[in-house]
Amino acid sequence: MCRWLAYTGSPLQMERVLFKARHSLIDQSLHARLGATTTNGDGFGLGWYARPAADGSLEPPFRYRSVHPAWNDRNLREAARAIHSSLFVAHIRAATDTPAQETNCHPFRHGNWLFVHNGLIRDFPLLRRDLMLMIAPAYFGSLEGSTDSELMFLLALSFGLEEDPLPALARMVGAVEETGRRHGVAQPINMTVCALDGERMIAVRYSSERESRTLFHNTCVQHLRQLYPDDPQIAALDDDTFLLLSEPLTDMADAWEEVPESTALIAARGELRHFPFAPIAPGA
Amino acid sequence: MCRWLAYTGSPLQMERVLFKARHSLIDQSLHARLGATTTNGDGFGLGWYARPAADGSLEPPFRYRSVHPAWNDRNLREAARAIHSSLFVAHIRAATDTPAQETNCHPFRHGNWLFVHNGLIRDFPLLRRDLMLMIAPAYFGSLEGSTDSELMFLLALSFGLEEDPLPALARMVGAVEETGRRHGVAQPINMTVCALDGERMIAVRYSSERESRTLFHNTCVQHLRQLYPDDPQIAALDDDTFLLLSEPLTDMADAWEEVPESTALIAARGELRHFPFAPIAPGA
Amino acid sequence: MCRWLAYTGSPLQMERVLFKARHSLIDQSLHARLGATTTNGDGFGLGWYARPAADGSLEPPFRYRSVHPAWNDRNLREAARAIHSSLFVAHIRAATDTPAQETNCHPFRHGNWLFVHNGLIRDFPLLRRDLMLMIAPAYFGSLEGSTDSELMFLLALSFGLEEDPLPALARMVGAVEETGRRHGVAQPINMTVCALDGERMIAVRYSSERESRTLFHNTCVQHLRQLYPDDPQIAALDDDTFLLLSEPLTDMADAWEEVPESTALIAARGELRHFPFAPIAPGA
Amino acid sequence: MCRWLAYTGSPLQMERVLFKARHSLIDQSLHARLGATTTNGDGFGLGWYARPAADGSLEPPFRYRSVHPAWNDRNLREAARAIHSSLFVAHIRAATDTPAQETNCHPFRHGNWLFVHNGLIRDFPLLRRDLMLMIAPAYFGSLEGSTDSELMFLLALSFGLEEDPLPALARMVGAVEETGRRHGVAQPINMTVCALDGERMIAVRYSSERESRTLFHNTCVQHLRQLYPDDPQIAALDDDTFLLLSEPLTDMADAWEEVPESTALIAARGELRHFPFAPIAPGA
Repeated sequence: MCRWLAYTGSPLQMERVLFKARHSLIDQSLHARLGATTTNGDGFGLGWYARPAADGSLEPPFRYRSVHPAWNDRNLREAARAIHSSLFVAHIRAATDTPAQETNCHPFRHGNWLFVHNGLIRDFPLLRRDLMLMIAPAYFGSLEGSTDSELMFLLALSFGLEEDPLPALARMVGAVEETGRRHGVAQPINMTVCALDGERMIAVRYSSERESRTLFHNTCVQHLRQLYPDDPQIAALDDDTFLLLSEPLTDMADAWEEVPESTALIAARGELRHFPFAPIAPGA
Repeated sequence: MCRWLAYTGSPLQMERVLFKARHSLIDQSLHARLGATTTNGDGFGLGWYARPAADGSLEPPFRYRSVHPAWNDRNLREAARAIHSSLFVAHIRAATDTPAQETNCHPFRHGNWLFVHNGLIRDFPLLRRDLMLMIAPAYFGSLEGSTDSELMFLLALSFGLEEDPLPALARMVGAVEETGRRHGVAQPINMTVCALDGERMIAVRYSSERESRTLFHNTCVQHLRQLYPDDPQIAALDDDTFLLLSEPLTDMADAWEEVPESTALIAARGELRHFPFAPIAPGA
Repeated sequence: MCRWLAYTGSPLQMERVLFKARHSLIDQSLHARLGATTTNGDGFGLGWYARPAADGSLEPPFRYRSVHPAWNDRNLREAARAIHSSLFVAHIRAATDTPAQETNCHPFRHGNWLFVHNGLIRDFPLLRRDLMLMIAPAYFGSLEGSTDSELMFLLALSFGLEEDPLPALARMVGAVEETGRRHGVAQPINMTVCALDGERMIAVRYSSERESRTLFHNTCVQHLRQLYPDDPQIAALDDDTFLLLSEPLTDMADAWEEVPESTALIAARGELRHFPFAPIAPGA
Repeated sequence: MCRWLAYTGSPLQMERVLFKARHSLIDQSLHARLGATTTNGDGFGLGWYARPAADGSLEPPFRYRSVHPAWNDRNLREAARAIHSSLFVAHIRAATDTPAQETNCHPFRHGNWLFVHNGLIRDFPLLRRDLMLMIAPAYFGSLEGSTDSELMFLLALSFGLEEDPLPALARMVGAVEETGRRHGVAQPINMTVCALDGERMIAVRYSSERESRTLFHNTCVQHLRQLYPDDPQIAALDDDTFLLLSEPLTDMADAWEEVPESTALIAARGELRHFPFAPIAPGA
């Protein structure tokens, strides 16, 4: 099981949420060492956007990915201290069957887009070839690793992620489910995913069996401030700050709202909107 | 440009040819540091076979692969000292465009087979998708990395490498050339390859433009002994020892014979046979 | 907390005890991922001896060390399958404060000696300089990493490990305790250690506070056979086989005997002897 | 032989000088692959300072270090694109005898200080212990690796680098030379070093034999602009920009001035001053 976190809002030093929060993302992997939860020791990745240039142009997002366990990678601590960003994503990997290598670490990237995933395509070795054939030639050259997650991203791109994200993600899920059924796989997909394009965070919680990996967002900035009572950076956050994550950073129950099953979220320009999410079958 | 070396003969400690020879494989990468030749710093791999069991059964071959430069990987020195084998292969990688990761390091492996390659498929990003679709479903699950070399191996397997190696390699080359021509690539392939099955070394030197990467074999064990005058292990080598390699280990000219263009070799049971090699077009 | 395992007996394929046993060493780190116990994800190491040559001479021991988590290092699986040895040691590291790098991975080596440690020197940064000054110049060149464990080994060597192991280990502990006390550290050392010289395994369980890390040995080969009922290699083990380890491989209570506090063991030539262990103060 | 580069001036995107210049630092290591010069494949490091806060306070400098060859580390390309700084240093390592590990990669860091070195202490294993004993206890805890370079930094700190840099560096060199002579080492030290404190670059070119590793600085910003004729960032550089480096970035002869033997430089606030440099013997 992987973990991820995505942030949009006022420029924030990444270490605030990666290291300094109670039950931070890295804490979750560290706590695992104490036996509390699952270990995520198979690599990690950061993706972030710089401020747009004066002319409004956007540089492609930046990445730092490594196969070291997050808790003992010293460069990660440096990066989290150095990076201030108003749109970023972090991912910690627990490999299932694919090798620990940088090209299998999230976020995946194409142009201005970043993509992270928690979950799996069931019986992936069985479905992989057929799914790979659905990748549009224009995106095939981006295929570098061997994970189900990267393939999901390239399929979403092939189905139009850059033009109209939600239908593209719905078609991707539809394609996986149809391919799965063709090969006799009962519940082919389980996922929370997040795609970012430099302005928006687009997240989906969905699974064939309707028991998806969890996904949360902060209820309001007021609560974030309570999480970090002594942190002037957090105190200075705008009210249009949103944090999405696979597991709450803390036990403070009313700070977090669980995203319901089969739901998509779009966070942009200080607004967080919910949409029902349903797969779109191929040919539909 | 990669480098490789394959050995069959009396059991030999691997470090004899990897480290201790004049102009050894590692030396070639070390000498590169002195500006003599191309640097091979993007990973390496060893593959070797254990002696067959008393009942004649063969354990699958062993591998050690790493993305460290060969010259500063301490485990490689240990492994080369520890491994005694009568059939092994070593490969040092100079990445072209694909990432330095273990799954891109040679030798590739399937069942009892190992495979190494020096050379390239030209315009590989353009041809990759079409070539990938030709991999038989039975072998698709073995695809882990992103190199042209691994794909050549899986294609050769798909075309029957395990039953009849030379026609399978000829069909693989034919498929690459036909796919290349379909996409307007003038000289699609340049290669020396070596496939091993636990008993045989099967090597081919071929390129579309008939200017292939070099390939050499030792002329006779007598000459190997001259290369290592003070080495009791080499002195003890049987006369049916063969060493194939991408570049001679030394300047001693008459110790090495260059394999001609468009030629296949099979070394087994103390015999080295040459065959003319020509691609077999798909459908032929 | 680290884990280690040392074996002496009939030649055994290393994977039998590293991977195939119930509650194997790797299992222990894998189970950690399920929340059962502490994660050991900060590197590992193997050390082993080859059979002595016909003339009785012994090659220096071999090592494979890596900073990858043991559970996702593919080379470890290959090595464990390839290595058959009648004297070996394996160690899995959970770093305390020192970086994850190969030179901090156990076993440490000098000449024919290997050394592993589980435990710690308390307030090591405070004591490190003084302890380092006690390393004899002849051994100082071997210092490569930054762990307390490596320093303990070099101190033991400085105090005569190669001539008379038990007094040397007792002087090492005495030196650490005396240095600790001088700096106001209440309980300076907690350890199980194992030193091997190609013929013997010499292990000590000791701590200043008399609550040492655990250490176990198998009660008899009969019990080992029960642990691996279907394994012909285990069935073929001689009766003079000994396995020492930091945690039992299984729940089978009567298969393992806990080594008492303040005890040293020497296993050699089919015999396992116990000795009381007490530090020897410097100057004594 | 290592290579390094240090920059002070208007905020600059690091990739301008690391990747985009003709004969850039990475080019130098890449060109090595073509046989032109020495390969630097044993790791690298970046160190940089953020802009001081509004209240003038300075955050400790940031680092990114890795043991991958610089030419195939993808995170390095990302970092060089992401980092804009007005004071930074980059180092590419060619290991001599010490292992390739992050703690042996430059720059070394203590508080606000960064330090890089090209060159060597001759017969370092022989001198190491004595030199280590001269490290003041306050700095001993910073010792993490096993290089001569890190030790030189900790000695300079012990001799007062933070208070008065040039005498401290002179005492460090004096201590190394005196220790060398005591052990019969003829020419104990050869170095170009650079120490940075957030405001200044302090560099020294010196060797016992007066044939030091080379060191250059740009003659004027006018020439830098000629090196990158099409680069708007370079065109915008202030006139008080200084670039120090171990080898010129280009063949343009009058763009670079070689720093003479036995010379120290201090670059700060738009000024570059030269000082004669002579070792200060211990006790002097």
